[in-house]
Amino acid sequence: MTVDFFARHQAVLEEAVRAAASRAYWTPFPESPSPRNYGETANEEGRRAFEAVLGTDFPLDLPGATRMPGDEASPFGLDLNVAYPRLSPEQAVGAAARALAEWRRAGPQTWVGVSLEILHRLNRASFELAYAVQHTSGQGFMMAFQAGGPHAQDRGLEAVAYAWKEMAGIPQQARWEKPQGKQEPLRMEKQYTIVPRGVALVIGCSTFPTWNSYPGLFASLATGNTVIVKPHPTAILPLAITVRIAREVLAEAGVDPDVVQLAVHAVGDDTAQVLATHPEVRIVDFTGGKANGEWVEQHARQAQVYTEKSGVNAVIVDSADDVKAVARNLAFSLTLYSGQMCTAPQNIYVPRDGIRTARGHVGFDEVAGEIAAALENLTADAAKAPELLGAIQSPATEARIEAAEELGLPVLAQSRPLVHSQFPKARIRTPLLLRAEAGHPAIQREWFGPVAFVVATDSTAHSIALAGAGARTHGALTLSAYTTDQAVAQAVRETAEQAGVSLSLNLTGGIFVNQSAAFSDFHGTGANPAANAALCDTAFVASRFRVVQTRWHV
Amino acid sequence: MTVDFFARHQAVLEEAVRAAASRAYWTPFPESPSPRNYGETANEEGRRAFEAVLGTDFPLDLPGATRMPGDEASPFGLDLNVAYPRLSPEQAVGAAARALAEWRRAGPQTWVGVSLEILHRLNRASFELAYAVQHTSGQGFMMAFQAGGPHAQDRGLEAVAYAWKEMAGIPQQARWEKPQGKQEPLRMEKQYTIVPRGVALVIGCSTFPTWNSYPGLFASLATGNTVIVKPHPTAILPLAITVRIAREVLAEAGVDPDVVQLAVHAVGDDTAQVLATHPEVRIVDFTGGKANGEWVEQHARQAQVYTEKSGVNAVIVDSADDVKAVARNLAFSLTLYSGQMCTAPQNIYVPRDGIRTARGHVGFDEVAGEIAAALENLTADAAKAPELLGAIQSPATEARIEAAEELGLPVLAQSRPLVHSQFPKARIRTPLLLRAEAGHPAIQREWFGPVAFVVATDSTAHSIALAGAGARTHGALTLSAYTTDQAVAQAVRETAEQAGVSLSLNLTGGIFVNQSAAFSDFHGTGANPAANAALCDTAFVASRFRVVQTRWHV
Repeated sequence: MTVDFFARHQAVLEEAVRAAASRAYWTPFPESPSPRNYGETANEEGRRAFEAVLGTDFPLDLPGATRMPGDEASPFGLDLNVAYPRLSPEQAVGAAARALAEWRRAGPQTWVGVSLEILHRLNRASFELAYAVQHTSGQGFMMAFQAGGPHAQDRGLEAVAYAWKEMAGIPQQARWEKPQGKQEPLRMEKQYTIVPRGVALVIGCSTFPTWNSYPGLFASLATGNTVIVKPHPTAILPLAITVRIAREVLAEAGVDPDVVQLAVHAVGDDTAQVLATHPEVRIVDFTGGKANGEWVEQHARQAQVYTEKSGVNAVIVDSADDVKAVARNLAFSLTLYSGQMCTAPQNIYVPRDGIRTARGHVGFDEVAGEIAAALENLTADAAKAPELLGAIQSPATEARIEAAEELGLPVLAQSRPLVHSQFPKARIRTPLLLRAEAGHPAIQREWFGPVAFVVATDSTAHSIALAGAGARTHGALTLSAYTTDQAVAQAVRETAEQAGVSLSLNLTGGIFVNQSAAFSDFHGTGANPAANAALCDTAFVASRFRVVQTRWHV
Repeated sequence: MTVDFFARHQAVLEEAVRAAASRAYWTPFPESPSPRNYGETANEEGRRAFEAVLGTDFPLDLPGATRMPGDEASPFGLDLNVAYPRLSPEQAVGAAARALAEWRRAGPQTWVGVSLEILHRLNRASFELAYAVQHTSGQGFMMAFQAGGPHAQDRGLEAVAYAWKEMAGIPQQARWEKPQGKQEPLRMEKQYTIVPRGVALVIGCSTFPTWNSYPGLFASLATGNTVIVKPHPTAILPLAITVRIAREVLAEAGVDPDVVQLAVHAVGDDTAQVLATHPEVRIVDFTGGKANGEWVEQHARQAQVYTEKSGVNAVIVDSADDVKAVARNLAFSLTLYSGQMCTAPQNIYVPRDGIRTARGHVGFDEVAGEIAAALENLTADAAKAPELLGAIQSPATEARIEAAEELGLPVLAQSRPLVHSQFPKARIRTPLLLRAEAGHPAIQREWFGPVAFVVATDSTAHSIALAGAGARTHGALTLSAYTTDQAVAQAVRETAEQAGVSLSLNLTGGIFVNQSAAFSDFHGTGANPAANAALCDTAFVASRFRVVQTRWHV
């Protein structure tokens, strides 16, 4: 049975390995929710599956679990009222440790085959996942479908592909013959066994519960570790569905389903800390805020720790052919999911003397005004805007808008509440755009959510220096620059390489700086404080397993 | 010039990559010091080079350094009286950080080409290095030549090969075309730049100053990092020679020689701690004792840390065809460099009811007696024995023999001082072999040096349990087992895989458990407390560099 899973998906696996090596466009999971891709009934079935669990006990059998009413409230205004089975940290780690010996012995083909089958079934459940992601994260439906479904599955598959490539590169056995001059050579037989590190923990976040969890989940699972998935207490459902599907596949493979477990907990308790520092937990994948991520990095000393935290993403505007095209692209990046993407720009550096464009010099105020106008334009249609904006995931993020307004900085675009036609209680706000001087302390910290600054600098050189220092000090997942000058582009690139941040140049078309494509774009670099790992590269998988060799004379 | 170095050694590099993938026997560096390999005059020139620095200032130009008289005293009785240039930690890190920008821009072919040329020249200096290793570590000359020269160079080359393979696997650019239905596809050009992590630190040890330092040194250098080499204060000379050669090559390559620096310091000061926790130091490779290694793991939070510490290596004796062959092999392992190898066995577990052999049942006392007799036999010739035993590196290790004697355990083989014909002041002792019960607390800790225990257990199952628990709790770099029973072999192997320790089965010929061959044997697993990394695998190199991408529309 387990060999079947590997054989069933081997062709896709090999394509995935090739795609990651070439970094050209590739995906086996269509991003369009079109019935042509997913069937005529998929959307309706997914919605019904989502609605069926509202107000009920989520159907997941975790032996020994107690019942915990969830704290999930949709940012669109729905109370989910789902109850989940709850394991104590000791129960979860104990079961994960017990499941480990059998899973270890199953070997790489089974680990990878099971992982691929889970991804395949997650893809078929993309609509159910989309509704669950929408009503926990607040993402608009299309984004919830794409980022929560196929794009997340891509990132999981990418991790499996890297894991497989590394494991397949280690021979199962070798004959070693050392010449001994005129005597017979010394001959040894050696066997190399891939062993997992142990119990792995995945700590999910509230804004991208699947996209940000799948790389770690699948990287650990595909390398033979048993995995405890700890969702954010306000975004449990998408990961509960994921774990339910994983356990179904494990059971079909004849393996203890406790290889993958869910560990829900109440807001504000210490479950994450207890799990992350448990002596049996040997791998932690964390996505979330800076303070919690740094806590894990500092305290989970017994584990390999992979973090994606947050940062202050910058845009450098030096010169452009068409300032309106720049503004449209930036406005979209600021609007998309209300700036709640870890890749969304925050500080837009523009020289206070203005910039060069194809139609001549354009002053700072005009550049800032164009961005503000593009923002207003994008969000003007109150019926359509919420799909792009999504809803604000947490009241804390909404409160941050008010805190930004209280900075007293000149307002370029106001944050307006919008009313969603379908979900009148949805927490929807347009982005707040402020003008700041380069020295203002507010731009030196992260304003997670729909808050951005157009920052007046002394010059492009000053902009570059600020962007570089910001990435080095506070971390950054993206850097964007607009310039028609090759020397400036080269200087920005040099700074990006020094600061370890990925650079997008002159995006004015259908690609936005916050977007990152699996198999092609490395998400994060691991080279600045925003993240200590990149999704996905060899470093992300290579330490999740070890090799134990046995040798003897022949 | 730098391209020449890469081209000059490209064929060897490609062979090294193939060897590491196949894990068959391979080396470009002959281990025999024969004149056929190294030339008629190499030994004499190497000795003269070694003798020429005794009592002088070591010729190494480190800008801004002060003069520090070294503390090195040969375990063979020679006072080296070499003075070295000394940099403060701030000076060393400052220069390493300054050298980084240019070295980063040089790119992978230069990093790898320079690394390979350094290894090539180290190989030509193998005799000079051998004398330096002998008179700092106390290794016998042949071992000092092999382990300090070609075998160390093999491990360095192995690290370069892994680094090259990983870096070469990342394309320099990609064309990304995302279909857009009936519209034109989105087209982007992407470039991927490999960037180093930053300043790397290598902390050397006193017993294998080159073998244990070269993997980290070359893994970091070949991935574009600048490297500070901090030798143990009692084993500076071999690494001073190494750094001198590295800087010669760097200068010829037109690169700032500060890409590789030496950071000597006095015994007992805090140089290692200050360097290891310096915010600019992003990689630390440590080899040495458990306490210092754990300190680095706990405190050097700003860096990727690779440690090889120590452990309690076990031997399980279950059954054998010929107990004398077992005893001869074990005695050699205990005698070689007086148990000062991190791979040397310490606890030999034998059921107190004895074992099965081809000639029938053999009692515990007879097994223990055979090992003791083989030890006495190996060390009986006072003229030859010192070549195998080497000298005791530190007075602390010699004192440990006395401490073991004071345990009051039955003595199976006494530790005798021997007088070296050429070096009458050499600190030479034969191994102490004691009998212990399985419950004795002494066997639960490391006795680094020539101290071993034959431990009486309830059964082979008990022996296996003790060996597994010891590896998991205290760490182990090797596990050896003797059995003619397939089921026992399988049980030992299962325990080895659980405990993450490499296993050698039934070694009775010309291979000993303490030996580990580059390109074939992984040294350490990274899966138990003895070491958090293996020499050498992908995980050892993949996190030493990062990828920064730049993308734009086409």
